[in-house]
Amino acid sequence: MKLNEECGVFAIYDSGGDCARSTYYGLYALQHRGQEDCGIATINDLELSCHKGSGLVGDLFSESILNELNGTIAIGHVRYAGSRDLHRENAQPLTLTYIKGSLAVAHNGKLTNSAELKREYEYKGAVFHTTTDSEVIAYIIAQARLHSGSAQAAVNEAVKRLKGAFTLVVMSSRKLIAARDPWGFRPLCIGKKGDAFVFASETCALDSVEATYLRDVKPGEVVWVEGGELYSNTENCTEKASLCIFEHLYFARPDSVIDGQSVYEARINAGKCLAREYPLSADVVIGVPDSGLVAAKGYSIATGIPFNTGFVKNRYIGRTFIKPAQATREEEVKIKLNPLRATIKDKRIIMIDDSIVRGTTVVQIIRLLREAGAKEVHVLSSAPKFISPCFFGTDIPSKQELFACSYTTEEMCSIIGADSLGFLSIDSLGQIAPDAKYSFCDACFTENYPIL
Amino acid sequence: MKLNEECGVFAIYDSGGDCARSTYYGLYALQHRGQEDCGIATINDLELSCHKGSGLVGDLFSESILNELNGTIAIGHVRYAGSRDLHRENAQPLTLTYIKGSLAVAHNGKLTNSAELKREYEYKGAVFHTTTDSEVIAYIIAQARLHSGSAQAAVNEAVKRLKGAFTLVVMSSRKLIAARDPWGFRPLCIGKKGDAFVFASETCALDSVEATYLRDVKPGEVVWVEGGELYSNTENCTEKASLCIFEHLYFARPDSVIDGQSVYEARINAGKCLAREYPLSADVVIGVPDSGLVAAKGYSIATGIPFNTGFVKNRYIGRTFIKPAQATREEEVKIKLNPLRATIKDKRIIMIDDSIVRGTTVVQIIRLLREAGAKEVHVLSSAPKFISPCFFGTDIPSKQELFACSYTTEEMCSIIGADSLGFLSIDSLGQIAPDAKYSFCDACFTENYPIL
Amino acid sequence: MKLNEECGVFAIYDSGGDCARSTYYGLYALQHRGQEDCGIATINDLELSCHKGSGLVGDLFSESILNELNGTIAIGHVRYAGSRDLHRENAQPLTLTYIKGSLAVAHNGKLTNSAELKREYEYKGAVFHTTTDSEVIAYIIAQARLHSGSAQAAVNEAVKRLKGAFTLVVMSSRKLIAARDPWGFRPLCIGKKGDAFVFASETCALDSVEATYLRDVKPGEVVWVEGGELYSNTENCTEKASLCIFEHLYFARPDSVIDGQSVYEARINAGKCLAREYPLSADVVIGVPDSGLVAAKGYSIATGIPFNTGFVKNRYIGRTFIKPAQATREEEVKIKLNPLRATIKDKRIIMIDDSIVRGTTVVQIIRLLREAGAKEVHVLSSAPKFISPCFFGTDIPSKQELFACSYTTEEMCSIIGADSLGFLSIDSLGQIAPDAKYSFCDACFTENYPIL
Amino acid sequence: MKLNEECGVFAIYDSGGDCARSTYYGLYALQHRGQEDCGIATINDLELSCHKGSGLVGDLFSESILNELNGTIAIGHVRYAGSRDLHRENAQPLTLTYIKGSLAVAHNGKLTNSAELKREYEYKGAVFHTTTDSEVIAYIIAQARLHSGSAQAAVNEAVKRLKGAFTLVVMSSRKLIAARDPWGFRPLCIGKKGDAFVFASETCALDSVEATYLRDVKPGEVVWVEGGELYSNTENCTEKASLCIFEHLYFARPDSVIDGQSVYEARINAGKCLAREYPLSADVVIGVPDSGLVAAKGYSIATGIPFNTGFVKNRYIGRTFIKPAQATREEEVKIKLNPLRATIKDKRIIMIDDSIVRGTTVVQIIRLLREAGAKEVHVLSSAPKFISPCFFGTDIPSKQELFACSYTTEEMCSIIGADSLGFLSIDSLGQIAPDAKYSFCDACFTENYPIL
Repeated sequence: MKLNEECGVFAIYDSGGDCARSTYYGLYALQHRGQEDCGIATINDLELSCHKGSGLVGDLFSESILNELNGTIAIGHVRYAGSRDLHRENAQPLTLTYIKGSLAVAHNGKLTNSAELKREYEYKGAVFHTTTDSEVIAYIIAQARLHSGSAQAAVNEAVKRLKGAFTLVVMSSRKLIAARDPWGFRPLCIGKKGDAFVFASETCALDSVEATYLRDVKPGEVVWVEGGELYSNTENCTEKASLCIFEHLYFARPDSVIDGQSVYEARINAGKCLAREYPLSADVVIGVPDSGLVAAKGYSIATGIPFNTGFVKNRYIGRTFIKPAQATREEEVKIKLNPLRATIKDKRIIMIDDSIVRGTTVVQIIRLLREAGAKEVHVLSSAPKFISPCFFGTDIPSKQELFACSYTTEEMCSIIGADSLGFLSIDSLGQIAPDAKYSFCDACFTENYPIL
Repeated sequence: MKLNEECGVFAIYDSGGDCARSTYYGLYALQHRGQEDCGIATINDLELSCHKGSGLVGDLFSESILNELNGTIAIGHVRYAGSRDLHRENAQPLTLTYIKGSLAVAHNGKLTNSAELKREYEYKGAVFHTTTDSEVIAYIIAQARLHSGSAQAAVNEAVKRLKGAFTLVVMSSRKLIAARDPWGFRPLCIGKKGDAFVFASETCALDSVEATYLRDVKPGEVVWVEGGELYSNTENCTEKASLCIFEHLYFARPDSVIDGQSVYEARINAGKCLAREYPLSADVVIGVPDSGLVAAKGYSIATGIPFNTGFVKNRYIGRTFIKPAQATREEEVKIKLNPLRATIKDKRIIMIDDSIVRGTTVVQIIRLLREAGAKEVHVLSSAPKFISPCFFGTDIPSKQELFACSYTTEEMCSIIGADSLGFLSIDSLGQIAPDAKYSFCDACFTENYPIL
Repeated sequence: MKLNEECGVFAIYDSGGDCARSTYYGLYALQHRGQEDCGIATINDLELSCHKGSGLVGDLFSESILNELNGTIAIGHVRYAGSRDLHRENAQPLTLTYIKGSLAVAHNGKLTNSAELKREYEYKGAVFHTTTDSEVIAYIIAQARLHSGSAQAAVNEAVKRLKGAFTLVVMSSRKLIAARDPWGFRPLCIGKKGDAFVFASETCALDSVEATYLRDVKPGEVVWVEGGELYSNTENCTEKASLCIFEHLYFARPDSVIDGQSVYEARINAGKCLAREYPLSADVVIGVPDSGLVAAKGYSIATGIPFNTGFVKNRYIGRTFIKPAQATREEEVKIKLNPLRATIKDKRIIMIDDSIVRGTTVVQIIRLLREAGAKEVHVLSSAPKFISPCFFGTDIPSKQELFACSYTTEEMCSIIGADSLGFLSIDSLGQIAPDAKYSFCDACFTENYPIL
Repeated sequence: MKLNEECGVFAIYDSGGDCARSTYYGLYALQHRGQEDCGIATINDLELSCHKGSGLVGDLFSESILNELNGTIAIGHVRYAGSRDLHRENAQPLTLTYIKGSLAVAHNGKLTNSAELKREYEYKGAVFHTTTDSEVIAYIIAQARLHSGSAQAAVNEAVKRLKGAFTLVVMSSRKLIAARDPWGFRPLCIGKKGDAFVFASETCALDSVEATYLRDVKPGEVVWVEGGELYSNTENCTEKASLCIFEHLYFARPDSVIDGQSVYEARINAGKCLAREYPLSADVVIGVPDSGLVAAKGYSIATGIPFNTGFVKNRYIGRTFIKPAQATREEEVKIKLNPLRATIKDKRIIMIDDSIVRGTTVVQIIRLLREAGAKEVHVLSSAPKFISPCFFGTDIPSKQELFACSYTTEEMCSIIGADSLGFLSIDSLGQIAPDAKYSFCDACFTENYPIL
C-alpha cells in the first residue's frame, strides 16, 4: 500500500537538442517519485531560465513555457513533500548567483548534518531563504568555489562535507555536474543519446527520451560534462555503499535498473523468497497494487498457485480527494481499491503487500476481501517488519506509530483479521538483489544505520 | 490500446443522506468513462443547485462546493468529449425550468434522430443553446409533460420518440426518474443503500458508495423513486435488446457486472476464445494495459503459457500532454508505455490488445518490444476487425481510417511488423458473455445495425 | 455615492475590420455600466464564436482569445449583476440556434412582462436554461421568425410584445439588428467608421473606436445593417418616450451625449439648479466622486463659491474587497474615500452627492469631513428624493429601505449630522436636459410610471 | 501623464489587533505606488507567515488568507516593477532565517552601491537568490548582527554601509524596526493608533487605518518598537537631506503630507508658479489626470481663468490591456483618456501635465483636443525639463530618449503641435514646498546629484 515517494532528478547536456523538452519527458517518467512540485531550469550561455511550481509535470508546463526555456543544458526535479514540508518556496531546482555567475541545483535525498552546517554558516552571517537541504548544498558549493579551481572541484569538496543521502545535479553556465553521496543511498544513472549526456534518478527516464543506459554514477563519484565530454572524479568513492533497499521494494518503477539490478527481478525474487519462507496452501495469489503485484507474481511462479488480479485500482484520484463525511475509512479505501469479486469469491487468498507500516489500511483491505466472499486471507509483506525510522529521506513514522514496534506477528495478524501473516525475513532480504553492484541500507528493518 | 470512453451517469434519492457527496464518490468510480467534464446537480424541495465544468471529479469539486449542493436527490455525470465536441457549455447535468418547475437531466449515449427532432421543434419556434442530445431530450420531456399526467409519464413518452442509445437520469423537485433505451445500448443498474435508491452506469459505482446491487434497468424500462418507493413502467420493453459489446471488451471497469455478466469474466472468456482460435507457441503472454491485461490472462489460463507484465504504464499523463517536437510517435508511446525488458528480452511474445483500430499505435508498440529484445511478437486482438462506424456513441473513425477496411489480415500483419496477427472471430464474440440476460450490438464488426 | 450600474451593449458590422477587437475597445469604454460579467460574440458566415465570463473586459480577454473571435459582425456586453442575480450562466451575449441557423442576443434593461411571457411559452412546452430576460427575448424572436419574412421583422414583432426597458443588439449570420424599446428607457446610439456601422449604449464607446456619431436609435425603432447598408423600421415609434433620467445623473459617462443632450451639461445644470434652490453661504463646494463632481462644478459656476477637490478616491479597490473585521463602516468608507484635509480644514463646506438612497454612506462621509476639520457641512443631492422602486432595471431598494420614505428632510439632516440638507426639486429636474429630444422617466422620484 | 510609480511599505506593531488586516488596508491606500506585486508578512513569537505574489492587494488576498496571517507584528509591500525587472521571485517582503532566527524585510528605493556590496559578499562565498536590493540589505543586516548587540544596532550599521535611496521596514520575532536613508530620498512616516505603532510610506495609509500621524522618520534615523515602546537612534542623521521632489509632483497621493509639506499644496503651488511664469490668456485651464489636475487648479486660482474637467479617464484598464492591432497610438490614448467635448469645443485651452518625458503621449493628447474642437492648446508642465537619469529609483529613460535633451522648447512645441509650451523653472521648483522640513533632490532636472 502507498507509503510515500522520493524525489527525482533529471539533467541533460545537449548542445543540439531541445533540453527543456527532453527534461519534460524525463520528469514525466519520474513522476512516481513525487507529485507535489516540479520544475525545470535551463541555461543558455549566461542566461538562466527556470519554471517551477506545484502540480504534476503535465499540468505545470505548457508548450509556450517550454519554448521559453532555452538552453544547451537543463536540470529538472519532481518533489515529494512528505508530511514535514508543504512550502511552495521549496520547489526545485534552486537557482542563484554566486561569485562565478549563475548556478542551478536540484537534489534527491536528506542530509543528516544539514542543521549543523546551516548553523555554522549562520555564524558567519549567512541568510537562508528556504528550509531545503538544497540551499545548504548550494551554499557549501559557493563557499568551496572560493578556493577551488573549478565548479566540479567545489562540488567534490561539498561531497566531502555533506553527510547523509544526496543525489545532486548542478548546472553552471557551461557545465553540467552530477554527484552521488559516498553511501549511494539514492540511485543516479548516466545515459547517452547521440552527442548528448543525460543523468537521471532511474533508467526509465532514459528510456523516455530514448537515451542509452551507460552506467550508474558510483557512490561518492562526481561526474561532469564540459565541452561535450564526460569527466569523472572518484576520489570520494569507498566500498561502504548502501543503496536504500526500499528503492527496490517500493519507490522505483519496475522497468528501472539500479546499480545493475532490475527492480522487477528484485520484486519477483522477494515473492519467491516469501514462497520459500511461507509455503501456504491457497487457490490464488493476489497483490495489492501497484508495488505488491510483481512480488505476488514471484510467489505464484515459485509455488504454482495461480496469480490473479484481486483489485481494480481507481486511476483518477486527482489532487484534492475529499474524505467521506462520517468517514468509515473502509469506504475511502473502497473508492481507491475495489475487490474483483470474480477472482475473490469462495477462494482461499494469499495477498502480498509491499509493506505494512501502521496496519490501518491492511485492516480495511482484508475486510473488503471478506465482504467480496474470500474464504481465507493470508497476508504476506514483501518487506520485513519496520522497526526504526529513516534519517535519509524515507518518510517512515515514529516508533510509536509503527505496527511492528507494538505488537508481535500473532497480535498483528489478529488485529488485522487475517488468517495468517508473514513478513520477509532479513536473511531473504539479502537475497533479492543478486545482480546489484553495491550493498544496501536496511536500517529501517535492522537499525544498522550506515552513518550516524 | 486507448480508443475512447463513454459518458457515465449516477443518481441517488436519499432523504437522510448527503446526496452530493455520494454522487461525488459515484462519479469517482465512473471517471474511466469520461474525463473531459463532470457535474453534479441536487434538488432540495424547489431549489435546484448545480456545479459543473471541465476537469476530473477530484479537481472540480471541493469540500465547500459539496456543502453548497444540498438536496435529497442528486444526479451526476462524467463526460467524454470525443473528437466532435469540445464546448464547455455541453457539460452535464443540464438544468432548466419548464412548465412544472425545475428539471435536471443527464444522459449517456447518442440519439440517431436528434437532428430530425431538433428540426421539428425549431419549426415550432424552439431555440437550442447547446449541441447536446440532452437538450433535445429535455425538450421532448417538457413537450410531453403538457399532456402527460406526470413527469415519469412524460419520460416514458420521450422514450417512445427517441431513437438510438440513451441512458437517462432525470430529477424534478420530488422525483428521481431513470430510463434506458429499448435497445439497451448502454448499461444502467439499480442499487439500494438503507432507504436510499441509487442508479449508476456501472456496478462499480454502487460499490463505491456501499450500495447493494438490486438489478439492471431493463431495456426500454422507466423507473422512478417517489416518496421513498421505487416504481417501474415496462411498457416500452421489448425482446430486441442489444447492449454494446464493446462495454465488455473495453469501456466498463472489470469489477463491474452488466446485465448479469461480469466484465472481468467476459474478458477472460475473450482470451480463452483467442487461445482456441490461435493456439500459438510462445514463452509468455502479455497484455496491452489496461483492457488487454485480462484477456491476456484468459489466454494464459487456457494455454498454460505464462502470463506476465509486458509494459509499465505511466499513470501521470495529466491533462495537457505536450507532444514531442519532431515527434516520432514512437517516443510518445514510450512515454506512456515502457516495455519491461526483464520479461521481454529473448522471449517469444504473445501480445493481446483490446482492439486494433487505425493500426498506428500497435506499430510503435511492436517496435518497442523488438528494441527491448523480443524474439517473436504475435499480436492478438480481443475484439474482431472494426469494419463499420458506430451511430450509438462509440467514437469509431470513418471506414477510410479503419485499418481492417483497407487491408487483409496478412497485409496488416506485415505493416505492423508482427510475426503473426489474429482477431477474435464473430463466432467467438458470441460466446464471451454467457451470463448476459440480453443480446448484443456488434454492428461495428458485422454491420448488423439494430436500428437505422 | 455608488448606487449601482446598468448593463452596456456594443455591436459592429465591419466587413473589412477586426470586429472582435473593436468590440473589445467599445466594451472598455462602457465598463462603468457593469463589471460583473462581459462577453463578445462574432459571426463569420455560418460560424458563430463566443467568449464570455465573469470579470472585467481587460481581465477576461487576451490577444489569443481575440484572434479566435473571427467575423464580420460582432456584438458585446458588459453586465451589472445587481443584488438579485449572480449566476455565471447569465453572462451575455446569449448564443443559440433556431430555425434559421445561429443567433446571438445581448440586451440592457428589464422587462416588466417577462414572467408572463415565460409562462405563456412554458405552456407550449418551452424550457428555459437561465433566468435572464435575454432568453425570453430570444424565444420571442425565434417564435416570431416562424411567420415573419425576415429576422428584422421578427425583432420588430418582438418589440411589440415586450414590455419594459430593453435595448437590444441581435446578430444572425449576415445581419446586425438593433432595437430600442418604445419608451426609450435606455440609450442606444449609432456610429459610422468608414464603411462600418456601430451601435453602442453610449457615445463614449463610439469615441473609443474613432467612429463618428450619426444619431440615436429612436424609441421603438428597429435598425439593421445588411449588405453594408443601414435600414430602419419606425413603425413602433411613438411620442411617449421616457429615458431614465438617472442615466444623466449617475449611470452614463460625462463625455457621452444621449438623445442630443450632453451628460456633462446635464450635471452642470443640476448643480446650477441646486444653486438657485439652495443659495447657501460657504467657503468651498466639493463633490462626492465621481458623479457628484460635475454637479458641484455647476453649483460653483452659478454661485461663484470656489469648487475644490474634497476627497481623494482610491482607484484600486479590486474585485474582492475584504471588509474590516469589527467593521466601523466609517473605516470602510475611509479606505475608498479620504478627505483632503488641505481643502477641508476650517472651511464651511457645500458637498454635492449624486443621490441619497439609504443614507448610510453619507453619514460616514460627513463624519470624515468633520474629523478633517470642516466647520460646516451642507449636503445637497443632485437627484430628488427617492420614494419609489424602479421596474425598468435600476437597482433601487424597497420603500422600507429608502431614507426619504421614512423621514422628513429635517429628520434626515439631523440623522446624517449635516448642517443643512437639500434635494433637487422635481421642477428643477425637468430643466437639466434642455437639449434632449425626448422626455424622461422620473418614476423613482414621482411614482409616475410610464407603463404598468 | 503616467510615468511610473514607486514602491510602498507599511508596518504595524499591535499586540492587541489584527495586524495582517491593518496592513491590508494600509497597502490598499498605498496601491498607487506600485501595482505589480504585493505581500504581507506577520510574526507571532517565532512563527513567521508570509503571503505575496503578483496582482493588486484586492485581488491577491482573501478573507481566509488574512486569517492565516497571525501575528503581533506585520510588514507589507506594494511593488512597481519598472522596465528592468519582472521576476515574481522579487516580490516582497523578503523572509529568511539568520543567526538570530526569522527576519522579514521590505523596502522602497534603489541602492547605488548594490552591485559593489553583492560582489564583496560573493567573494566571501555568499549566494543570492534574487536580483533585489532587499536581499543585499538583508545580507548586510545578518552580517552586522554577528558583532552588533541587537537587531536595531545591526540595521543602524547597515544604514552606514548602504548608499542610495532606501526606506526600510524590518521585522524580527519581537521587534519592528524602520529606517530611512541619510539622504531621505523616499518618505516614511510614523503613526499611532491606541497602543499600536504604524510605519508607512505616506500618511494616507495612516488615515486608512485611522492611525494618528506622529511625525516622519528623519533622514538617517533608525526607529524601532520593542515591548510596546518606540525607540530612536539618530546617530546617522545629517543635514544633507534630499527628498525626491518628484514625490510631490507625481508619486504621492495628494492627501498625503511628507516631512511637513502637504502634497496637495505643493501641486497647487506648482500651478501658481506656472501662472506667474506663464501668464497666458485663455478660456479654460484643464489638467491631465490624475497628477496634473491639482496644478491646473493652482493655475486657475492664481489667474482667475476657470478650471474645468478636460478629460474623462477610463478607470477600468485592468491588467492586460491589449493594444490596437495597427496601433495608431492615438487610439490607445483615447481609450484611456477621452476629451470632454462640452468643455473643450471652441475654447482656448491651457493644459497642465505633471511632466513631459518622451513627448510621445502629449502629441496624441493635443491632437485629441484639437479634434474635439479646441481653438488653442497651450501646454504647461508642472515639472521642469527632464535632462538626466535618476539613480535612486525613479524610472526615467536615458538621455537619448528624453525629449528635452534633444530639442529646444520651441522645437518641442512645434513637434507636439501646441500653440505654446512652458516648463516650471528650477527657481520656481524651489518654492513649491515651503513647509517641508528638508531640502530636495532635483538631479533629474539639474544634474546636481546628492551622492555619486
